[in-house]
Amino acid sequence: MTPSTKLTQLRRLLVQHQIDGFIIQRGDEYLNEYVAPYAERLSWLTGFAGSAGLALVLEKKAAVFSDGRYILQMQQELDSQCWEHYHISQNPPVDWILSEGKNTLKIGYDPRLMSEKDLKSFAHPNITMIPVNSNLVDAIWVDQPPPPSHPIVPHPVEFSGLDHQNKIKTLQEGLIKYDEDAYIFCDPASICWLLNIRGSDVPYTPIPLVYAIITQNHVSLYADSNQYSQDLTRFLGNNVILQSHANLEKDLETLKGKKIGFDPVQTPIWFIQTLKLHQAILHPRENPCMLSKACKNPVEQEGARQAHLRDGIAVCRFLYWLEHEGIGHNEIEVAHRLNEFRKAAGGTYYQEESFPAISGVGANGAIIHYHASPQHCAVLQENQAYLIDSGGQYLDGTTDVTRTVWLGTEKAPVALSQAATAVLKGHIALSSVIFPKKTTGSRLDVLARYALWQKGLDYDHGTGHGVGSYLSVHEGPCRISSLPFPIALQKGMILSNEPGYYLLGQYGIRLENLLLVIDADFPNFLQFEPLTLIPFDLKIISKEDLSSSEKEWLNAYHYLVMMKISPFLSKKEQEWLAKICSPIT
Amino acid sequence: MTPSTKLTQLRRLLVQHQIDGFIIQRGDEYLNEYVAPYAERLSWLTGFAGSAGLALVLEKKAAVFSDGRYILQMQQELDSQCWEHYHISQNPPVDWILSEGKNTLKIGYDPRLMSEKDLKSFAHPNITMIPVNSNLVDAIWVDQPPPPSHPIVPHPVEFSGLDHQNKIKTLQEGLIKYDEDAYIFCDPASICWLLNIRGSDVPYTPIPLVYAIITQNHVSLYADSNQYSQDLTRFLGNNVILQSHANLEKDLETLKGKKIGFDPVQTPIWFIQTLKLHQAILHPRENPCMLSKACKNPVEQEGARQAHLRDGIAVCRFLYWLEHEGIGHNEIEVAHRLNEFRKAAGGTYYQEESFPAISGVGANGAIIHYHASPQHCAVLQENQAYLIDSGGQYLDGTTDVTRTVWLGTEKAPVALSQAATAVLKGHIALSSVIFPKKTTGSRLDVLARYALWQKGLDYDHGTGHGVGSYLSVHEGPCRISSLPFPIALQKGMILSNEPGYYLLGQYGIRLENLLLVIDADFPNFLQFEPLTLIPFDLKIISKEDLSSSEKEWLNAYHYLVMMKISPFLSKKEQEWLAKICSPIT
Repeated sequence: MTPSTKLTQLRRLLVQHQIDGFIIQRGDEYLNEYVAPYAERLSWLTGFAGSAGLALVLEKKAAVFSDGRYILQMQQELDSQCWEHYHISQNPPVDWILSEGKNTLKIGYDPRLMSEKDLKSFAHPNITMIPVNSNLVDAIWVDQPPPPSHPIVPHPVEFSGLDHQNKIKTLQEGLIKYDEDAYIFCDPASICWLLNIRGSDVPYTPIPLVYAIITQNHVSLYADSNQYSQDLTRFLGNNVILQSHANLEKDLETLKGKKIGFDPVQTPIWFIQTLKLHQAILHPRENPCMLSKACKNPVEQEGARQAHLRDGIAVCRFLYWLEHEGIGHNEIEVAHRLNEFRKAAGGTYYQEESFPAISGVGANGAIIHYHASPQHCAVLQENQAYLIDSGGQYLDGTTDVTRTVWLGTEKAPVALSQAATAVLKGHIALSSVIFPKKTTGSRLDVLARYALWQKGLDYDHGTGHGVGSYLSVHEGPCRISSLPFPIALQKGMILSNEPGYYLLGQYGIRLENLLLVIDADFPNFLQFEPLTLIPFDLKIISKEDLSSSEKEWLNAYHYLVMMKISPFLSKKEQEWLAKICSPIT
Repeated sequence: MTPSTKLTQLRRLLVQHQIDGFIIQRGDEYLNEYVAPYAERLSWLTGFAGSAGLALVLEKKAAVFSDGRYILQMQQELDSQCWEHYHISQNPPVDWILSEGKNTLKIGYDPRLMSEKDLKSFAHPNITMIPVNSNLVDAIWVDQPPPPSHPIVPHPVEFSGLDHQNKIKTLQEGLIKYDEDAYIFCDPASICWLLNIRGSDVPYTPIPLVYAIITQNHVSLYADSNQYSQDLTRFLGNNVILQSHANLEKDLETLKGKKIGFDPVQTPIWFIQTLKLHQAILHPRENPCMLSKACKNPVEQEGARQAHLRDGIAVCRFLYWLEHEGIGHNEIEVAHRLNEFRKAAGGTYYQEESFPAISGVGANGAIIHYHASPQHCAVLQENQAYLIDSGGQYLDGTTDVTRTVWLGTEKAPVALSQAATAVLKGHIALSSVIFPKKTTGSRLDVLARYALWQKGLDYDHGTGHGVGSYLSVHEGPCRISSLPFPIALQKGMILSNEPGYYLLGQYGIRLENLLLVIDADFPNFLQFEPLTLIPFDLKIISKEDLSSSEKEWLNAYHYLVMMKISPFLSKKEQEWLAKICSPIT
């Protein structure tokens, strides 16, 4: 089907449903970051494959809205005969709808794909939002893949560190505290954490597509029936009831008069509408798994160290290969090669990439969310900066690391080295800070930027995100960001530390390690333990701009990397690693 | 009258007014930080003279509530036969009222002394708040001083830098934008800024006790009629109408059906109740003077530099005196001597202290809001740390500076020096940061704490507050604090930079300069210019713990101090200053 045929068919449905327009969200019924092919409705309908955005189809016009990262990509991927495209915050969809000039507009939406907050962004006296219970794109997408239905597998206590019965018990105590009859979980990662299960229904994140309802007596898990095995039934025990998705609506109907907890940010509006319809008492409160999931227990912490050891071996071997054989390969081939190193080093632990690798050489490195595609893909050449941001899912931990290296033997240009050194100084300042308990990530953010600011430079993205334990590589509720955020950093949290600098059209620099929050030597203070074990490329660093304490940090880190990784390398790789990890003065 | 007699009389009035209790606020009808003697109702009734708190008198019990700074002082000053005392956030007044166990309690309050937010803190189903239009303390305080009524004087354009007619015009454009018929100002400092006037009705802040209402046509100023002079009338011009306080209520009554802007934080609830009663349309929005007042224009900036030059001369001469003759004087005498130096250096520009000086030796320095009193006052002795936090009101600017010096010739103990060096490192980091426009003070706060944190130390107060231009020494809306705060730092703002460290029972260290926000050399970046011109005492600094760039900053700052201040000193003072400002290596 051509874009124009798809639009014509969709518009026919608008008439049938007596609505003036329809919203197509990017995202699935679990509000996931990465979605299965069946849920790529936005991409199928419009051709735009960015990871954020929405489309709006009205009778006479249609548009796609996304953020600043994707303006260029929308322009490249959308058929301009059919689709307008806009910056979602500069030209909000509501204004675009209202520019139709009509006094009343009925806009349809799929309530399973939208949170309350998404819906509120369309609130306007002239707009009536109409929930449409069968998605209109599904109705015209004839070869839509079926939703995935892969087995749900136990995540054994040797990795999770805490029996799921204990976790359930703690949550049930929360129900009593809040006087709730039940709490509904729509976030599959939380359910995975709670029940110590994993799955493979979406790329990059080892989750099944499930919902769960917890009561005082039991947990009901909702999935496709064929995702359950006898092993799983035995593992989960009697108080976890394995339900079919088909039973969910019926079960919600039975909650009349009951007080039901749910997280308003993570819950599709369909749940809220259904509960209201059946006269349940709604009790919005933050998902009680979020903080517990973020604070890794000692077993998860040790798992993270093991996963990072394997990841370090893989990436060190990759960097050796890159230096010796990388030139001439394109960005996709190089990222693919890195994945092969992860497979080899990870063995049975390694599952998949934790997100689509960002592999950008030269000017492509300056595009913060660059994705090389077979159509748009550069070849690595001498005397260019190369940025590779990648990660792996291991059974015992999730990794995420960025290195920027200088290709070839010449020294990097001075301006690049100075910027890269400022990035490294920020990375070191954040990595080595000791901070009081109750400190939020927002308060630490400036440490990663200070050295850049002193040169009039900055980067337009956050400094750090939470990372799961063999779960999502972008995990709430903690982060390190310039925006105020109330959650304090706590022992056991894993966060990224990824300052950068991007010179449009020239190069991009980002230096990222994962950090584990641990106790400091002073009472009531915390600090970070770097989990990532991968050297920084000193060809892009001006050693003379580093202070003696920064050099000390760098030398100690490189010594640690060498001691940990070297035993797993070939003789040649060992020599290379020893050289690039040798102390600087 | 004894405390007990006062309480008996007040309780008689409770019966007369048919209420179960009465709230006595600290603060006046303008919600000022410093109040005139007539408004010291809390202190007169209870004996507690702290700068924050409230009292509650019920039929059978009475209590004073204040924050953690004042627990000891409440214990010392309150008659325990009459008054209980509590930490206001740990034992909120509402809980204390409810502990009476009654189902309905009528609590009286003076609506002219409370903001909407103050009132909301008493919201509870079992409590009915009753506005009492004549203050019950005033009714029994037979020798209550009259409210002050000092002349209002013009603040000439050579100091203000901008004609008040221009300021009025800008505000009137705001009225049009918000479709308001009038805006009510209850903050005297804002009215002073707007009309280029000053007064002397309260200590430390050069303001008259005035309200103002601005409309499209004119500004009505409300004061006591005898505060007006012919000079003032001529200066203010025809479109500023000089009204008597007595006319205020009548004028509010005429606003029926009009849309009235006001700042909900700065407006006593009496205004809101009166406007509601007379059916005005309320339009709460932030006081539009606040940001303009905070961003000093070039004339005000130059005034600040001049004021700080005089202040620097005064404090340098004081520090010379302190080193040579300070030992043996008590804390009050020493602070008094500093004020004499300010008078001498300030000449006709100098008006008064900008706040009650904090003069604390040894362990007293560790009490963050210490106030020496004739009853509790230590004598300066050798080999102790001495902390002096003080400031002056000059016609062209307001100053605020803290220095900690080591008394005597021996070197300060190592632990103290290490802590003081960390404080200085924080001070330097904040003072020398270059930061992008739109950066909030909250984001910079950590720079002042980083060095302390690395030693497991911290301080339990904000890092910086805004400072007025011959106005309040604590001025909104900008600040540098660990709490998130949305106002970005902007060119022309003056802020304090005052990290500290306090070891209870031992010593306190605080190092404070005022900083002016100026453009940096990089486009879209800002930086600070230190206004304060006073050396730091190197006897408490471990030079070996300073980095080379910190030493550079310190040497450059001390060189600046010497060049600016030296010409105004005696020969002996010059030699002394040259010695203590000599560069360190």
